Amino acid sequence: MTFEIQQNELVSVSGWGRLKALPGRLGTKIVEAARKIKKLGQDDPRRIIHSLKVGLAITLVSFIYYVESLYEGFGGSAMWAILTVIVVLEFSVGATLGRGLNRGLATFIAGALGFGAHYLASRSGDKVEPILLGLFVFLMAGVVTFIRFFPQMKARYDYGLLIFMLTFCLVSISGYRDEDLLDVAHRRVSTILIGSFTSVFVCICICPVWAGDDLHNLVASNIENLGSFLQGFGTEYFKISGEVGESKTAVMQRYKTVLNSKQSEESLANSARWEPGHGPFRFSHPWKQYLKIGSLTRQCAYRIDALNGYVNSEIQTPPEFRSKIQATCTKMSMESGKALMELASALKTMTPPSSARPHIAESESAAKGLKSLLQAGLCEEIDFLEVLPAATVASLLVDVVSSTEKIAESINELTTLARYASVEHIIVEEKEAAVSVHLQPIPPCSNTSGEHHVITIDQPSRHLP
Amino acid sequence: MTFEIQQNELVSVSGWGRLKALPGRLGTKIVEAARKIKKLGQDDPRRIIHSLKVGLAITLVSFIYYVESLYEGFGGSAMWAILTVIVVLEFSVGATLGRGLNRGLATFIAGALGFGAHYLASRSGDKVEPILLGLFVFLMAGVVTFIRFFPQMKARYDYGLLIFMLTFCLVSISGYRDEDLLDVAHRRVSTILIGSFTSVFVCICICPVWAGDDLHNLVASNIENLGSFLQGFGTEYFKISGEVGESKTAVMQRYKTVLNSKQSEESLANSARWEPGHGPFRFSHPWKQYLKIGSLTRQCAYRIDALNGYVNSEIQTPPEFRSKIQATCTKMSMESGKALMELASALKTMTPPSSARPHIAESESAAKGLKSLLQAGLCEEIDFLEVLPAATVASLLVDVVSSTEKIAESINELTTLARYASVEHIIVEEKEAAVSVHLQPIPPCSNTSGEHHVITIDQPSRHLP
Repeated sequence: MTFEIQQNELVSVSGWGRLKALPGRLGTKIVEAARKIKKLGQDDPRRIIHSLKVGLAITLVSFIYYVESLYEGFGGSAMWAILTVIVVLEFSVGATLGRGLNRGLATFIAGALGFGAHYLASRSGDKVEPILLGLFVFLMAGVVTFIRFFPQMKARYDYGLLIFMLTFCLVSISGYRDEDLLDVAHRRVSTILIGSFTSVFVCICICPVWAGDDLHNLVASNIENLGSFLQGFGTEYFKISGEVGESKTAVMQRYKTVLNSKQSEESLANSARWEPGHGPFRFSHPWKQYLKIGSLTRQCAYRIDALNGYVNSEIQTPPEFRSKIQATCTKMSMESGKALMELASALKTMTPPSSARPHIAESESAAKGLKSLLQAGLCEEIDFLEVLPAATVASLLVDVVSSTEKIAESINELTTLARYASVEHIIVEEKEAAVSVHLQPIPPCSNTSGEHHVITIDQPSRHLP
Repeated sequence: MTFEIQQNELVSVSGWGRLKALPGRLGTKIVEAARKIKKLGQDDPRRIIHSLKVGLAITLVSFIYYVESLYEGFGGSAMWAILTVIVVLEFSVGATLGRGLNRGLATFIAGALGFGAHYLASRSGDKVEPILLGLFVFLMAGVVTFIRFFPQMKARYDYGLLIFMLTFCLVSISGYRDEDLLDVAHRRVSTILIGSFTSVFVCICICPVWAGDDLHNLVASNIENLGSFLQGFGTEYFKISGEVGESKTAVMQRYKTVLNSKQSEESLANSARWEPGHGPFRFSHPWKQYLKIGSLTRQCAYRIDALNGYVNSEIQTPPEFRSKIQATCTKMSMESGKALMELASALKTMTPPSSARPHIAESESAAKGLKSLLQAGLCEEIDFLEVLPAATVASLLVDVVSSTEKIAESINELTTLARYASVEHIIVEEKEAAVSVHLQPIPPCSNTSGEHHVITIDQPSRHLP
C-alpha cells in the first residue's frame, strides 16, 4: 500500500510542478513559434505572397456560390472549382501548369473512356452491368496503379494518373445511377476548367515564381557554397593567424547543403520543363544540363566533405613540411575556390565561363608546383607518417581542381546549348519572314533525343524573284 | 521556287522513310515496354500485389452504388468513398494510416470550424454574409498554406493541412446555398469513413507492406553495399590477378545508391512512425535512430566515393612501395568491409553488433601496422610524388575504419534503445499484473526528447499482503 501512495505522491508532485510552470512554458513556446514564423517569412518572402495568392484564388472561384446566376448554372458542381484550385495552385508556375495540364488532360481522356465503359456495360443487361462495371474499374485501377511505379511516369505524370483513375471510376460507376450523366459531366468539366484557369491566372499574373529560375539559382548557389569553402580552407587548415572568425566557419559549412541537393534539383527540373519562356529562358531551355552540372557539383562536394574532416584534425604536421606545402596548397584551394565563384557568376549571367579560365589555370599550375616540390626530395628530412594527413589534403585538393574543370566544361556546354536554342529561335523568326531555307541534318546534341536539323539561311535566295 | 520544292522533297522522303520503318520501330518499342514492365514487377512483386489491392478496394467501395439500399442512404455522396480510397490507399501501411488519420482528423476539425464560420456569417445579415464568408475563407486558406511551408509540418501533416483547407472552404461556402448542411456533412463524413476504413483494412489484411520493415532493410542493405565495395577494393586497387570480374565491379558500384538515400530514408521513417507494432518492432520503435545510422553511412560513402576515384587511376605506384603497403591496406579494407557486413546482419537480426568487434579490431590493428610501417622509414628509397596516390588511399582507408566504428556505435545504441523499449514493455505488462512499482528518473537517451523513467520492479513488494 505504502508503495502505491508513494508513487501517487510522486506523480502528483510532478504534475503540480508542471501545472505551475505551464503559463511560463506556454509563453516561451508562443514566442518561439512567432520567431519561427517570422524567420520562415523573412527567409523567402515569396511564401507569404503565395499564401495570399491561394487565399485570393479560392475567394475568386467561390463567387460561383455567391452570384445567383452562376450558381444556377453549376449547382453542386461548383465545389469542383474550389477543389481544383486547392490541389492545382502550387508554389511555382511550372508545378501549377504541370498539375493543371495533368488534371485537364486526365479528366478529359478518363471521362471519355469512363463514358465508353458505362455505355458498353449498360447495353449488356441489368444483371451483367454491375459485374462488367466492377471488372472494368478493377482492371483500370490496377493497371494505372502499376504504371505509377515507373520512375519516369512518377516524376512527370503521377498526378495525372491519379486523376485519370479517379475520373474513370467516378464517371463509369456514377453512370450506373445518374440518368443525366452527360449533363453532370459537362458541369463538372466546366467547373474544373474554371478552377484550373483561375489557378494558372493567379499563379502567373501575380508575382510569378518560376521553377526554372529557382533551379538556375540553386545550382549556381551550390557551386558558390563549394567556392566559399575552398576560399576559406587554406587559412583554416594551416591556421593562418587571426583570419578565421566564427562567421567564416559558418559560411564554409554551407557546402553540406550541397550533399543532399539531388532530390530538389530533380523536382525543380521536372517543374521547369512545363514552363513557357520567361526572362532569359526559352521554352526549350536545356534544363537537363543543370542536373548534369548538379551531379558534378555533388561529386566535388564529396571530396570537400573528406577535406573538411582534416580541418580540425589534431595531428600536427611538422612545421618544415607544412611551410613548404602551405603556399602551393593555399593557392590551389584559393584559386579553385575563385574559379568556382566565377563559374557560379557565369552560370547566373548565362555567359561562357571564360573569366574562370585564368583561375583554373592558376590552380593547375599550383598543383604542378606541388608535384615538383614533392619530387624535389622533400622526403629525406621528414617522417612519412607525420606528413600523411597533409599529403592526403594535397591529394584531395588535386582532385578538387580536376572536379572544378569538369564543372567548367559542363557550364560551357550549357551556355552553348542555351545559345544554340536562342540562335535557332532567331533564325526561325527570320524564316517566318518568308525567306526560303535548306534543311541540313546535324549530329544530335547530347541530352536531347531524336534527329536535329539546323536551319541555315541561304543568303542569295533573298534576291530571288 | 526550286528551293521550296527541294525542301518539300526532303521532308516527304524522310516522312516516307519513317512511315516504312514505323511497324518495326513500334514492335521494338512494345517489346522494350513489355521488358520494362516485367522487370518492374520482378524487382519488387509487392508492386503487383499493391495494384491488385487498389483495384479490390475500389471495387469494394463501389458496392455503395450497386446495392440499392446503400445508395438510397448516401446518394451522390457515395463518390467521396471512391475518392478517399484512391487518395488514401498507399503502398505501405504507415503511409496509408498516416493519410487516413490526417484525412479523418482534418475533415472532422475543419468541418466543425467551417460549420461555425457558416453559423457566424449567417447571423450577420444577407448582405454581410458573403463578405464575411469570403474573409474567413481567404484568411484560413492563407494561414494554412503558410503553415504548410514549415518543414516539420510538411513532413508529417501536409496532406492533413490540404484536406483541412479543402473541407473548411467547402463546408463554410456550401452552407451559403445548401439548406440541409448538417445532412450533407453527415453523409459525406460517413462515406469518407467507409473509404478510409476500407483502405486501411485492405492495406493491413492483404500482404501488408510495412514502411518500418522497408526502412530497416534499406539501412541494412546500404551498409552491406559499402561493405561489398570495401571487400572488393583491395584486390581491385592492387590489381591482384584474375580475381576481379565484371560482376564484382557491378557489385562494388552499388555504393553509389547510398550517396542519395537521405530522402527515401526520411520519408520511410515518417511513414513508419504511424505504424502499430508488427513483427519484431513495437509501436515506439526508435525509428529516428535509423536516420542517424543512415547519415553516418552516407558519410562513410563519401569517403568511399573518393576511394573509388583511385581504383582505375593511371598513375603507377612504384612496386617496392606498393608491395610494402599492399598487405596492410588490403587487410584494412577487407576487415572493415567484413565489419560492415557483420554490422548489417546484426542490424537485420536486431542483435548487439558483437560479431563485428573482432573485424573492427583487426582493421584498426592493420591501420596501426600501416602507421608503424610508414614510420619505419619507407621514405628513403622512394619518390614522394609517386607514392602520393597510394598514401591518400591508405589515409582514406584509415578514415573509413573510424567511420565503421561510428556506425557500429550507433547500431549498438539502436539495439539498446529497442531492447530498452521492449524491456519496458515487458515490465509494463508485469506492472499491469498488479505489482507495485517505483519510478526512478534516468538521464535522457540521445535522440528521444523529454524525461525518461525506468520502471524497476520492487521484488519484496510481491510478498506484501
